Amino acid sequence: MDSLRAVRACCAELPRGDDASAAAAAARQDGLTKPRGSLGRLEELVAWLARWQGRERPRLELVGVLVFAGNHGVAARGVSPFPAAVTAQMVANFAAGGAAINQIARVAGATLRVVTLRDLEPTADLSRGPAMLEHELLDAIRLGADAVNPELDLLCLGEMGIANTTSAAALAAATFGGTGADWAGRGTGLDDRGVRHKAAVIDEALARHGDALGDPLEALRRVGGLELAAMFGACLAARLHGVPVLLDGFVCTASVAPLARLAPDGLAHARAAHCSAEAAHRTLLRRLDLRPLLDFDMRLGEASGAALAVPLLRAACACHDGMASFAEAGVSDREPAST
Amino acid sequence: MDSLRAVRACCAELPRGDDASAAAAAARQDGLTKPRGSLGRLEELVAWLARWQGRERPRLELVGVLVFAGNHGVAARGVSPFPAAVTAQMVANFAAGGAAINQIARVAGATLRVVTLRDLEPTADLSRGPAMLEHELLDAIRLGADAVNPELDLLCLGEMGIANTTSAAALAAATFGGTGADWAGRGTGLDDRGVRHKAAVIDEALARHGDALGDPLEALRRVGGLELAAMFGACLAARLHGVPVLLDGFVCTASVAPLARLAPDGLAHARAAHCSAEAAHRTLLRRLDLRPLLDFDMRLGEASGAALAVPLLRAACACHDGMASFAEAGVSDREPAST
Repeated sequence: MDSLRAVRACCAELPRGDDASAAAAAARQDGLTKPRGSLGRLEELVAWLARWQGRERPRLELVGVLVFAGNHGVAARGVSPFPAAVTAQMVANFAAGGAAINQIARVAGATLRVVTLRDLEPTADLSRGPAMLEHELLDAIRLGADAVNPELDLLCLGEMGIANTTSAAALAAATFGGTGADWAGRGTGLDDRGVRHKAAVIDEALARHGDALGDPLEALRRVGGLELAAMFGACLAARLHGVPVLLDGFVCTASVAPLARLAPDGLAHARAAHCSAEAAHRTLLRRLDLRPLLDFDMRLGEASGAALAVPLLRAACACHDGMASFAEAGVSDREPAST
Repeated sequence: MDSLRAVRACCAELPRGDDASAAAAAARQDGLTKPRGSLGRLEELVAWLARWQGRERPRLELVGVLVFAGNHGVAARGVSPFPAAVTAQMVANFAAGGAAINQIARVAGATLRVVTLRDLEPTADLSRGPAMLEHELLDAIRLGADAVNPELDLLCLGEMGIANTTSAAALAAATFGGTGADWAGRGTGLDDRGVRHKAAVIDEALARHGDALGDPLEALRRVGGLELAAMFGACLAARLHGVPVLLDGFVCTASVAPLARLAPDGLAHARAAHCSAEAAHRTLLRRLDLRPLLDFDMRLGEASGAALAVPLLRAACACHDGMASFAEAGVSDREPAST
């Protein structure tokens, strides 16, 4: 991906996954000692993993959590109750093992890697002009893509960046229409007045950039942010490598919305790990046709929701791999017809 | 619990949990490096575990899964597409490690114990008379209670028993009113005709037992089953021992409904691990004021949904125990007021 043109070309010809592995996994499920379909979403998740890993029996030996951290010029507009310095402080907290994602990744049996964008130097203020130049966008997309280990069995994506729910809300509005009020939420804890101010800042941005937001990559450049562009790149690279992706919250989901715009099934290799408490996340998931695995009122980001869902996939794979068939266990299958 | 009278007396004076530990846990959460409340349900779950374990920092070292297996006279009425022999076959499958719960318990880091009731000899047919005599009910409740290791940090409850969704639906109707059609579902896979027949059998039972179903323990005796009575006893014993409980699906939830009737906060030490695909489970959870952790369209029973949720609690405890405070990490707390 040497140019934005190459990124577009790549999106136009995404791999479609392995039908045969998905079908074989589904067939195997039907023979295991349980009423057909009775493991519900666990069965669907196994077929999904099988499709993208290209294996009838998917595995989760190498699970990665990638957290991208970046700063935003729009933070200067007072759209977050926390100062921008917290981005760097939290990166240090990740390194020291003191953040939520450190604990959740350990429980998930996943390896955490934190990638800082441009030494946390902020983007330009998206409410006053484009957040990034073209080469800055491309660099961030490539950094994200290069951070994906092609050997991963599963990738959890997340972010850290003070003010990035403002960027995400603007990107969601650019992608699906609506105003600042439709997409702005409390983020890390704004009060009602703070949310109204944030919505007004987003409306300023939408008015300033106008029709230029109609193009998905141009919208990402103008109102996105460095860590959002990196998540976009990582999600795209995962697709090319056959690595299934668990998406985290509102910012993460917004960052990959351009991929769904560039290709009709662009997010087929991704699942929404959870629906966050950020008000517009549910709407965004619905618009992207993503059904979340968890609904836990979380709103932390840093891939915490994505990593939280990993053991659910481990259980799905363990059932798929370890259960006996009706024949092996000497269990009677259902009677020919109910009476 | 030497008599049903003693069971009633016990329910009238249930321990209320440790307010101080719950408050200390909540206070600790507020100082950790995250916006307040941003871990959502994970924070609430930690305070709940703290209350019932009586520890500011709850632990999940000893997690038990108890599966009670029993047979039902009403199976002879053709209310399940599987033959009653499957109960014993599945118990053998549990012992051999080939069932879903074996795999899910392993992922959960939990110890599985399967307890068969009365060598799987069936109860009487609940549609023709009481399923159990008083001493049979008491024996099953006591067996369930005695199966609970008081040292457990968490108990997952579940069951196996062909035709037991019929018993559970009748018990739900006895507890909350309504007809067979309101509470009968597909169970292991009935077609529409099968569900209509099952509803009619339940209506027969409701008509036969009449006003006697107004008493919670009498309802459990008349339309419950041995494994349902055992789950009731186990849930009650867990409360007495300060062991928090994760409930499984429709049958498990119905089995503890009498406890909610006997004491207003009788299920305060329990959480619903999931909402199953059995149609009436959502209604039952709502009537019991239980908000499920997962909604995965599962309908297998055998504690599969309860055990699936254990890693979510592990993540909650890991965050609570391992995260740095704002002061420890040198992270700025929120600014005094949003602008």
